[in-house]
Amino acid sequence: MRIIHQGLGNIGLGIARLVLERGHTIVAAVDLDPAKAGQDLGALLEAAPLGVEVTADAAGALRQPADILIHCTGSRVRAVLPQLEAAVEAQLDVVSTCEELAYPWYHHPEEARRLDDLARRRGVTVVGLGVNPGFVMDALPIMLTAPCRDVTRITAERVVDVSQRRAALQRKVGVGMTPEAFRAGVREGRLGHVGLVESVAMIAGALGWELSRITEEIDPLVDGAAVQGLHQVARGYRADGDPEAAVMLDLVMAMGARDPHDAVAIQGTPPLRLVIAGGIHGDIATWAIAANALPFIVAAPPGLLSVSRLPLLHLTRPLAQRHRAASPGPA
Amino acid sequence: MRIIHQGLGNIGLGIARLVLERGHTIVAAVDLDPAKAGQDLGALLEAAPLGVEVTADAAGALRQPADILIHCTGSRVRAVLPQLEAAVEAQLDVVSTCEELAYPWYHHPEEARRLDDLARRRGVTVVGLGVNPGFVMDALPIMLTAPCRDVTRITAERVVDVSQRRAALQRKVGVGMTPEAFRAGVREGRLGHVGLVESVAMIAGALGWELSRITEEIDPLVDGAAVQGLHQVARGYRADGDPEAAVMLDLVMAMGARDPHDAVAIQGTPPLRLVIAGGIHGDIATWAIAANALPFIVAAPPGLLSVSRLPLLHLTRPLAQRHRAASPGPA
Repeated sequence: MRIIHQGLGNIGLGIARLVLERGHTIVAAVDLDPAKAGQDLGALLEAAPLGVEVTADAAGALRQPADILIHCTGSRVRAVLPQLEAAVEAQLDVVSTCEELAYPWYHHPEEARRLDDLARRRGVTVVGLGVNPGFVMDALPIMLTAPCRDVTRITAERVVDVSQRRAALQRKVGVGMTPEAFRAGVREGRLGHVGLVESVAMIAGALGWELSRITEEIDPLVDGAAVQGLHQVARGYRADGDPEAAVMLDLVMAMGARDPHDAVAIQGTPPLRLVIAGGIHGDIATWAIAANALPFIVAAPPGLLSVSRLPLLHLTRPLAQRHRAASPGPA
Repeated sequence: MRIIHQGLGNIGLGIARLVLERGHTIVAAVDLDPAKAGQDLGALLEAAPLGVEVTADAAGALRQPADILIHCTGSRVRAVLPQLEAAVEAQLDVVSTCEELAYPWYHHPEEARRLDDLARRRGVTVVGLGVNPGFVMDALPIMLTAPCRDVTRITAERVVDVSQRRAALQRKVGVGMTPEAFRAGVREGRLGHVGLVESVAMIAGALGWELSRITEEIDPLVDGAAVQGLHQVARGYRADGDPEAAVMLDLVMAMGARDPHDAVAIQGTPPLRLVIAGGIHGDIATWAIAANALPFIVAAPPGLLSVSRLPLLHLTRPLAQRHRAASPGPA
């Protein structure tokens, strides 16, 4: 598969490493950072030269013949929409780690419709995904409703100990700030996890629950005077007047957070409660989901799709694909 | 959706109840049992009359205009193949709880190819599914590899306490037998869970792991002189010579089995271990997955598909579908 890579931060570089491992070819790499433009992509990956010079010229890169764009430049749909539209105009499928793109229909219905229309006209597929949003707090809970006769409520909780994680993530959750600076950062949209309300909307959308509103609270977790991390809760309320939240997603990301885990509870018939002790590691998991999803996205029908509309995702390695061709199973 | 229902045992009747709850219409019902033929389907469901008389004449029933056949007559592909082929010839999509049909490519490649060819020619989709095989020991482990950079081994364990379950299930796992009679029953194929080796093959097929062999052991769990249930283990070995099983599925179904649960462990990067305390209830879950899968199967491309090739399954209720039409999300 021929790939154009746009956005070479931690997530973008991690995905690049994995797609190269899987035998795909990166034909162009785009990043606006002047410290990166002009370098060989291999150098940024701390690997052998790849003969791919990082460029700040996205339009030029999109003229390379390619199959798919891997897009990792930002979290907000409105900010990245021109980039996505340029790729779709160039008739590229797109997988993006833009958090809001995981389910833009609820909060950005106009932008979603426009991008979906364009993707259909150009015959390409656009999907936003990652481990969260895109897997552990939405796709996994959605799948867990399959063995249920009925479902009344869905809860997911994720506790991440950020003490072993990169500094940029620690900053994003407010580590070391005063509570006042934290609250100002939340008000200005600089702090907090982007995508939790999108996960609520994705779950409700898959189950066909019309929501009247989605609320979100982001609070600092404080030890003494310094913020250690955040506690973020998003709730979706059904339009049928049920006063209790139909979907509640509860996220803790903090230094030394106790009992890191992922948990999903389905209140229904039968009730289910799933626990992943230790939780799913965020960075590797997002890299891997994006890399594993490539063959599914290239094969998917045109349009802007949520990950819940794709076939069951799973590991897709080059070795695996070679074996599959020789096996009697379905391709 | 107009449904023909074939096989009105515990599973068939349970699914019938759920599809009626979801607002679908059963246009014909087939069962060979003389005690059932001639009765109104509503009576078998202990509900109001439905105006659908159960018939032993499958060929006659298949002449009713319908969208899909719900097939619940047997566990073995070879035994039910003529029934499946008749439905496909009648241009019906098919969802079947035939355990071997969940992944027939490994053990019945000829039959699978024949049925797949016929389904493609007739433009219909055939899927075998249920909670096990079809969900908890195959589709769920497959999905859990999506956030992984690499995977070396997959283990799933399921412990079911059958003391609160129906007598037919208790008999199927040998409850009350002598160990000798149990072993004879296993040798003759009358005892044991059907589908465990299919789950091994489905996981390997999805990940593209070519297997050199799949082994299966079925042993009695004995308390004093009487069998209390079974312990069944299936292992799949990769063709690359790895002496350790790449897939191991471990199933206990016994009276008073301690700590009933479902667990999945992915050995890889990152490693994952998921636990569902209490486990997923078998009967309701199989009814619900079949009923929830109907819209996905009707929309799927033609052919014989494993459940791992369908979009992410989830709850699909009539209420949900009504809401969905009004929501801005993807249909």
